[in-house]
Amino acid sequence: MTRKDGRTNDQLRPVTIERGWSAHAEGSALVTFGGTKVLCTASFTNGVPRWLTGKGKGWVTAEYAMLPRATNSRNDRESIKGKVGGRTHEISRLIGRALRAVVDTKALGENTIVIDCDVLQADGGTRTAAITGAYVALADAIAWGREKKFIAQRSEVLRDSVAAVSVGIIDGEPMLDLAYVEDVRAETDMNVVVTGRGLFVEVQGTAEGAPFDKRELDQLLELGVNGCAELRGIQTTALEG
Amino acid sequence: MTRKDGRTNDQLRPVTIERGWSAHAEGSALVTFGGTKVLCTASFTNGVPRWLTGKGKGWVTAEYAMLPRATNSRNDRESIKGKVGGRTHEISRLIGRALRAVVDTKALGENTIVIDCDVLQADGGTRTAAITGAYVALADAIAWGREKKFIAQRSEVLRDSVAAVSVGIIDGEPMLDLAYVEDVRAETDMNVVVTGRGLFVEVQGTAEGAPFDKRELDQLLELGVNGCAELRGIQTTALEG
Amino acid sequence: MTRKDGRTNDQLRPVTIERGWSAHAEGSALVTFGGTKVLCTASFTNGVPRWLTGKGKGWVTAEYAMLPRATNSRNDRESIKGKVGGRTHEISRLIGRALRAVVDTKALGENTIVIDCDVLQADGGTRTAAITGAYVALADAIAWGREKKFIAQRSEVLRDSVAAVSVGIIDGEPMLDLAYVEDVRAETDMNVVVTGRGLFVEVQGTAEGAPFDKRELDQLLELGVNGCAELRGIQTTALEG
Amino acid sequence: MTRKDGRTNDQLRPVTIERGWSAHAEGSALVTFGGTKVLCTASFTNGVPRWLTGKGKGWVTAEYAMLPRATNSRNDRESIKGKVGGRTHEISRLIGRALRAVVDTKALGENTIVIDCDVLQADGGTRTAAITGAYVALADAIAWGREKKFIAQRSEVLRDSVAAVSVGIIDGEPMLDLAYVEDVRAETDMNVVVTGRGLFVEVQGTAEGAPFDKRELDQLLELGVNGCAELRGIQTTALEG
Amino acid sequence: MTRKDGRTNDQLRPVTIERGWSAHAEGSALVTFGGTKVLCTASFTNGVPRWLTGKGKGWVTAEYAMLPRATNSRNDRESIKGKVGGRTHEISRLIGRALRAVVDTKALGENTIVIDCDVLQADGGTRTAAITGAYVALADAIAWGREKKFIAQRSEVLRDSVAAVSVGIIDGEPMLDLAYVEDVRAETDMNVVVTGRGLFVEVQGTAEGAPFDKRELDQLLELGVNGCAELRGIQTTALEG
Amino acid sequence: MTRKDGRTNDQLRPVTIERGWSAHAEGSALVTFGGTKVLCTASFTNGVPRWLTGKGKGWVTAEYAMLPRATNSRNDRESIKGKVGGRTHEISRLIGRALRAVVDTKALGENTIVIDCDVLQADGGTRTAAITGAYVALADAIAWGREKKFIAQRSEVLRDSVAAVSVGIIDGEPMLDLAYVEDVRAETDMNVVVTGRGLFVEVQGTAEGAPFDKRELDQLLELGVNGCAELRGIQTTALEG
Repeated sequence: MTRKDGRTNDQLRPVTIERGWSAHAEGSALVTFGGTKVLCTASFTNGVPRWLTGKGKGWVTAEYAMLPRATNSRNDRESIKGKVGGRTHEISRLIGRALRAVVDTKALGENTIVIDCDVLQADGGTRTAAITGAYVALADAIAWGREKKFIAQRSEVLRDSVAAVSVGIIDGEPMLDLAYVEDVRAETDMNVVVTGRGLFVEVQGTAEGAPFDKRELDQLLELGVNGCAELRGIQTTALEG
Repeated sequence: MTRKDGRTNDQLRPVTIERGWSAHAEGSALVTFGGTKVLCTASFTNGVPRWLTGKGKGWVTAEYAMLPRATNSRNDRESIKGKVGGRTHEISRLIGRALRAVVDTKALGENTIVIDCDVLQADGGTRTAAITGAYVALADAIAWGREKKFIAQRSEVLRDSVAAVSVGIIDGEPMLDLAYVEDVRAETDMNVVVTGRGLFVEVQGTAEGAPFDKRELDQLLELGVNGCAELRGIQTTALEG
Repeated sequence: MTRKDGRTNDQLRPVTIERGWSAHAEGSALVTFGGTKVLCTASFTNGVPRWLTGKGKGWVTAEYAMLPRATNSRNDRESIKGKVGGRTHEISRLIGRALRAVVDTKALGENTIVIDCDVLQADGGTRTAAITGAYVALADAIAWGREKKFIAQRSEVLRDSVAAVSVGIIDGEPMLDLAYVEDVRAETDMNVVVTGRGLFVEVQGTAEGAPFDKRELDQLLELGVNGCAELRGIQTTALEG
Repeated sequence: MTRKDGRTNDQLRPVTIERGWSAHAEGSALVTFGGTKVLCTASFTNGVPRWLTGKGKGWVTAEYAMLPRATNSRNDRESIKGKVGGRTHEISRLIGRALRAVVDTKALGENTIVIDCDVLQADGGTRTAAITGAYVALADAIAWGREKKFIAQRSEVLRDSVAAVSVGIIDGEPMLDLAYVEDVRAETDMNVVVTGRGLFVEVQGTAEGAPFDKRELDQLLELGVNGCAELRGIQTTALEG
Repeated sequence: MTRKDGRTNDQLRPVTIERGWSAHAEGSALVTFGGTKVLCTASFTNGVPRWLTGKGKGWVTAEYAMLPRATNSRNDRESIKGKVGGRTHEISRLIGRALRAVVDTKALGENTIVIDCDVLQADGGTRTAAITGAYVALADAIAWGREKKFIAQRSEVLRDSVAAVSVGIIDGEPMLDLAYVEDVRAETDMNVVVTGRGLFVEVQGTAEGAPFDKRELDQLLELGVNGCAELRGIQTTALEG
Repeated sequence: MTRKDGRTNDQLRPVTIERGWSAHAEGSALVTFGGTKVLCTASFTNGVPRWLTGKGKGWVTAEYAMLPRATNSRNDRESIKGKVGGRTHEISRLIGRALRAVVDTKALGENTIVIDCDVLQADGGTRTAAITGAYVALADAIAWGREKKFIAQRSEVLRDSVAAVSVGIIDGEPMLDLAYVEDVRAETDMNVVVTGRGLFVEVQGTAEGAPFDKRELDQLLELGVNGCAELRGIQTTALEG
């Protein structure tokens, strides 16, 4: 059995990372996972929020959003609705946690990096594409901060890299990097966030249809770890480019 | 090594479920996991939201909130801040998904059940206590709906039961059902939602400190599955009482 | 003529005050007036809001709210609606004024006490139960502040005690402490807030049906004053317990 | 002893009611109590809100607000703050209740009247001036509705008239119709809403300083009833003008 | 051809400026352009917003709003809707820009003037009436600040005066100062803000029906400049009164 | 004298229009004016808002927004602030008016087109780039609607094309299409919206520094009209591509 777009079950969609897309941001990347396109910008500010002042530590946070017509039918803007939806909040928090897991905030010093992940076009896996691109933007913003002497020359701010991918079970078969048409049919849906050294930062598995057992969980985790290793390579290429 | 409250690593805190706490709700339970107290009420309404009308299916949703002084220091009310925070949104969505995973919405018919989980006192594990208590409130609301003939006599609305527990790694040791003082020290924190038959509905593991490996993940899952089995027994006793 | 629950016209419902209900708050009480249950917590903070700084005076304020299913049918959460309703505002302000009327803010010193009154179950008279319970929580929070030396040892912060009760005219008869079924039928509805010495702090009478005359007003006030005297005894017992 | 503006204790400030101030509204009045100026407009709409449809009854409601520089120092606009304050809510509700107390909603038929009371200049007693002026606007809107045949020719929509005035105790002396400089010094502050026949619609007394006793309450009520009788005369003159 | 109200095409409606309408504001004017009535108050505060502190410059800003029944049918309050509409925002910004164009903020010193323009009754041209009246209120607030020594005695804060008027093309004819019935029929609608010396501060022309050409634009500008010159005379008279 | 980027005063920046950028929208264009990049998507829906139903007319509206790091320093998201700012509102309204000026809503039939203009990168002239790109997206959405038979085959929905450009006076010299560094220094700033036939749809000129006279206004208008004619050519090329 092959997938709609001809991929094998353990195959990523074409992934590209266009580093430095933004003329203004201290770090940026336009990341695509097939039809999913996310613009990630990292804004570096010297100083930290008031509640963190004087502790000798930095702060990394993230905000995720979708353009109203990123999806198949138009969604009302959250700015006009006057409130941020639960899904948006949840994904913003996930991205922030994923990035902070590889950042040594002491080494960052009293600096703040805000990562904005704006989905320009959505076709499944927007949160995992966002994490994968955000890492590249973050790395560039840290490099910028070091060059501008806001960060000490020798300090190793990044303890590891981080990437993420979705996995799921469709018609009983575990598959990597679900496109939207696959995602809506998945019985189980999982997002796996993995460091460059292959350790887990976050595992979020949800039974959309029937509950799943340990064997299925193990299969999904293996697919996800392998996918993230491949994404790690693409990140490295982008950052060396 | 023993834990601060004298428990072994695989031991739950004292758990109680006071069924029918509310005089008004169609189903209700006051659930306690040690110092964590959550009031769960299930509100049954005949009919469904407009977007679901005429599809012959019901709707189950959940809202989670904390009283301002449920915690050690007072938090401002979300009603006064004028917006619901990301954490609240995220937990409300988790509870809703967990309950829907065991509900046959066709069998429920065009009826709506809203579960409110209000944390009266917090000491870690509020979301898992909420899911565990919410299941009892849900079961009673379904029984009420059947008695009032809003649900067909023979239809099996609940496909399974569902319970949840937190697990985590502290000082390298996997532990079950973290109290607040344990939770803040955990290197890895995981919430496991498991059905009465022992299948996973949701697995959410997060590296708070160092990333974790597959062996640690397996240990946590095993602890969580066993804890949920024990909670299943307490739910059954409550529902038979 | 007797009332639906068998009470005489000048009889309170069974009133209980469970002091120290909350493990976290500096003062707390779970108060019940029949089927009305209100959790009152008092949060003590050293310091005052900026607008009061340096004046040598403390601040006492209150917030009232209802759980969504405290009532017979579910109400949407004010946090989700994104705004606090007029009724909630009005009652919060009433409770705050009632408590401040018996507090010597100079003696309190530059400390802040926030009283949260959350209605867990409603059956009429929630605002009067809230005031009656809030006084007990307030007294305990002041005692806590004195023990922690935030308040000077000798200072008399409380000038008097305070309690409140509803009264109303139903089918032409003045009655004390209306339950919900009585409240909706009342022609005139009045809330009376009275100190332990029997003086008025607040009198709020409203013609729901026909306007009322001076004789009816006098009858209601007398009933209310007597009811508050009885509540004063229950408060004293709780605080001595 | 005389008051700052030379009045005796039982004397109203100069009161004027300019009927028909607005070119657009179905009823309107610009009412002044000394330096307090309130523009009251009544908007008549055929039909009622959805929740009242088909019950053969009308609806009367009120909204109160202050211009930002109605007061001595400027207040931020509630529209810009994005929320209506507690005081605004409370007064809007009071005005609405006061007017509904003299309206026979069956006789009004399925029509809605919204009364807007906007304080153009504030010098104490804005809510009582608003009620007094709103009655005149309401009466004219009802006359308009009758003329346009939205209200049956014979039906007596107004059961009585209604007016309101503030009273208070300053330096131990009961006084009528407090100006702002008096209001801020009052030990006890009361608003009395009275019908043309001399019956009470609303009594709201608050101890701002020391609690008050029954004798003081009686003195204030007597002052208030007399003041409202005088206001009744001014309303009548305006409506006959 | 004459206009509905008998004016010629280049004729203003009757314009009045009642200076010092408000007892509280440092400057104020009730301005009428025919049936349009706008209350303009200027609030003077010593000091500037934080972002401007220490730059030796003052700040002038404006807020525009309409009473709910200023118009022919009632509009919901923006305070209750919880957000300020686009039209309100747009006009507030226009008024602020118009006033700042004639203010030397260095000469003003570190003082803030907030101009509130509240439309009490609307009949077309509310924004231009607001600018015209706001100038008078502003001039008086500056005089107040000089008298109170917040502004240096010799400094010329006002570089020029400013007034505004609407112009439009109706049935192919350019007309000055459109009343509401004219405004809704206009093919092209333009607001012209002109200084006392006859220079443009703002030109906003919009094709409501068919697009317009350069000749029409020139005709409208000429009408507007002449109208503003006339308004300049009325402002001068008011300020000398 | 030449400009910072080497352009002559009457020269546009390099302008590109990438038609069909979005895989989902019925019409779309990524438009760039130098460093300004705006993604315009047109969403076509069969049907109109309730207030327009049954009138046989369609509806075209627009929403403008900026990504948080489109600019040189990061701006907080309006979704998180919970309200849309005045500038955003103003520009959204301008774009909507500009497009509606060339649409025959009768010919469009009861269909709705929402144009979203999201600024991905800002370097001056975002609103004029948005209008210029939005026209292309709109034209494609109309073509889509005709193809899907939502629009009658023969009906001419577009009466003309529309484009926009900014002009301004810097150091006394009129210049076309201001980049950000020019815009902040401009004494006068004007946006001109012109149809393909060379007629004005909107003229908005503002004195940022000194007021301007008729001669300057005429120079700016001429520059703007010529710039729009050039943009018209680029639009045509894109639509024929």
